[in-house]
Amino acid sequence: MILSIDAMGGDSGPASIVAGTAIARRRHPKARFLLHGDEAVLKPLLARHRTLAGHAEIRHAPAVIGMAEKPSQAVRRGRNSSMWHAIDAVARREADVAVSAGNTGALMAIAMFRMGIIEGISRPAIAVQWPTMRGQSVVLDVGANAGCDEHQLVDFAVMGEAFARAIFGIDRPTVGLLNIGEEEVKGIESVKRAAQILRASKLPIEFHGFVEGDDIGAGVVDVVVTDGFTGNVALKTAEGTAKLIVHWLRSALRRSFFGRVGAMFASGAFRVLRRKLDPRTLNGGVFLGLNGVVVKSHGGADALGFASAIDLAIDMGGSDMIARILKDREGVSTEPDQAGPVAENSNGAASEKAVIS
Amino acid sequence: MILSIDAMGGDSGPASIVAGTAIARRRHPKARFLLHGDEAVLKPLLARHRTLAGHAEIRHAPAVIGMAEKPSQAVRRGRNSSMWHAIDAVARREADVAVSAGNTGALMAIAMFRMGIIEGISRPAIAVQWPTMRGQSVVLDVGANAGCDEHQLVDFAVMGEAFARAIFGIDRPTVGLLNIGEEEVKGIESVKRAAQILRASKLPIEFHGFVEGDDIGAGVVDVVVTDGFTGNVALKTAEGTAKLIVHWLRSALRRSFFGRVGAMFASGAFRVLRRKLDPRTLNGGVFLGLNGVVVKSHGGADALGFASAIDLAIDMGGSDMIARILKDREGVSTEPDQAGPVAENSNGAASEKAVIS
Repeated sequence: MILSIDAMGGDSGPASIVAGTAIARRRHPKARFLLHGDEAVLKPLLARHRTLAGHAEIRHAPAVIGMAEKPSQAVRRGRNSSMWHAIDAVARREADVAVSAGNTGALMAIAMFRMGIIEGISRPAIAVQWPTMRGQSVVLDVGANAGCDEHQLVDFAVMGEAFARAIFGIDRPTVGLLNIGEEEVKGIESVKRAAQILRASKLPIEFHGFVEGDDIGAGVVDVVVTDGFTGNVALKTAEGTAKLIVHWLRSALRRSFFGRVGAMFASGAFRVLRRKLDPRTLNGGVFLGLNGVVVKSHGGADALGFASAIDLAIDMGGSDMIARILKDREGVSTEPDQAGPVAENSNGAASEKAVIS
Repeated sequence: MILSIDAMGGDSGPASIVAGTAIARRRHPKARFLLHGDEAVLKPLLARHRTLAGHAEIRHAPAVIGMAEKPSQAVRRGRNSSMWHAIDAVARREADVAVSAGNTGALMAIAMFRMGIIEGISRPAIAVQWPTMRGQSVVLDVGANAGCDEHQLVDFAVMGEAFARAIFGIDRPTVGLLNIGEEEVKGIESVKRAAQILRASKLPIEFHGFVEGDDIGAGVVDVVVTDGFTGNVALKTAEGTAKLIVHWLRSALRRSFFGRVGAMFASGAFRVLRRKLDPRTLNGGVFLGLNGVVVKSHGGADALGFASAIDLAIDMGGSDMIARILKDREGVSTEPDQAGPVAENSNGAASEKAVIS
């Protein structure tokens, strides 16, 4: 397994990324790494991590794509960048998976440009692993597409089930469409029509029907499908709620002597909770729908966080996910009178609306 | 202040509602209550609560609207119901505010039918109080409208600021539009256009611009404006996340002897946390945009929860909120070339799409 690492992307700097790669190297002894970036910067960093020697190779790329750069600019002017080179190595089949902590929009734009979209899929999506009461679920899209029609939602279901199968090793994942009520009458048209198509499809999934926001954390289904706007709001609202509760817990414990004593005794339990809430343990969104696998690490990820993103990349790289998406996409039958022109129109409209966060 | 209570709605039954009204009566000695429902059921319940005597009056209504009944059916066939009577008393200016724990969709439909929508407002919305690190914010719409155009979002901003002023007593609330990025280029068209209109408006607000999902819990703005689909998903995702974290905390504490000892010492702190997370302390969504105030209590609310909904109703009833909405709506200037036909078209489309959760 060869991983193509954008060693310059993100807010934490190349030192964190190289250190994270060294952690990943210890966890996955057979993996090899291409480190794309400024050789003058990376050489001394690589020298610090002896375990990486013989497993990593520096590929010089002089430029860096800034976190504020626009996707269109990145595609036009980013050819010398570490990000471009990292994706290029996967597109040229020199590496299996690309990992970057850089600018999400630029990464998606370059990946679409260099890798292309899987045949039959209208738009790529970003999927994340979401911790639940029953373990983990997959949620997508969390930010690649602002408005989605029913065909895109169905594509997301296809990609989500292939992703869930790859990382959870389950055979027939359960899939739910995020909606605001479980009854048929509720919700927006595109979501309702996507449900009709999924019910009629021959996908290797158990289609659960609609799920609501609180069903995500409860782990009601393995895969939650939604548009990128709603998914992004849900993901960030969950993060904000977790922070709020930890804040309340901390100030409640500090308020009294007994609270402080209790916190001391329960420090082991709080450590467990902190680990559960640590975004570093589940770091990484996966770009799905491309002819290649790209893992996006959080921009502010430290070494441990970046190592988690590589863990995910290795899970992905070892699977036949893209072949499964191609095959499963064929199992979706849309009625003949809808499939042709409607799909074309709506894809056209959708690409105009598409927004990358 | 006279409160019109639907004594039969909700899952907990009239005993809880009458008990909740008795709690509210002790908190608000000057309030008077009309209890709508089956006299044979309510009379013995009222007799149990002596404090209510002289402050509450039973108004016989033989029928009850079921929790699964469709809104359109409720409007056609619900005229004998406790819910209808409760709203009717406010529409006829016999009471100041209506409170019901019944079927949300039916309640909204009957309220729209009997009270009518405030002039200039395109659609009503449901607003909730959301606990934050800085206290509380208002979030709307959380479920009355599935798809919203920019004019509806602007109306929600007008209604949200009037609501925030009524319950928080602040003069110029800060208002944010929920989006998936703070940069101008991101997000969906309707949200971007709503931002342009709000920036140009003369509303008595501080328009903050865009906020993201995690900004809600952080309390970045006093009022968060979004469409009913996104708002409902965000609200329920936050509820699900809170449950998940409490579940993790509980199981982490139970796992070890020290954890159990620590939990004992810190029991006071956990009580504080539990109270913060108790949905009963902030029970009630408010229907905004109608010529009358309706508070929707959670369907499963117990006596304490229903009393909180009445607290909110009393805060609302004592304010000049509806007059403020009417006045502030005039401060929104849309460009002449957009205001006319676009608003008409989009309102037409929106009412077709409108869905009540």
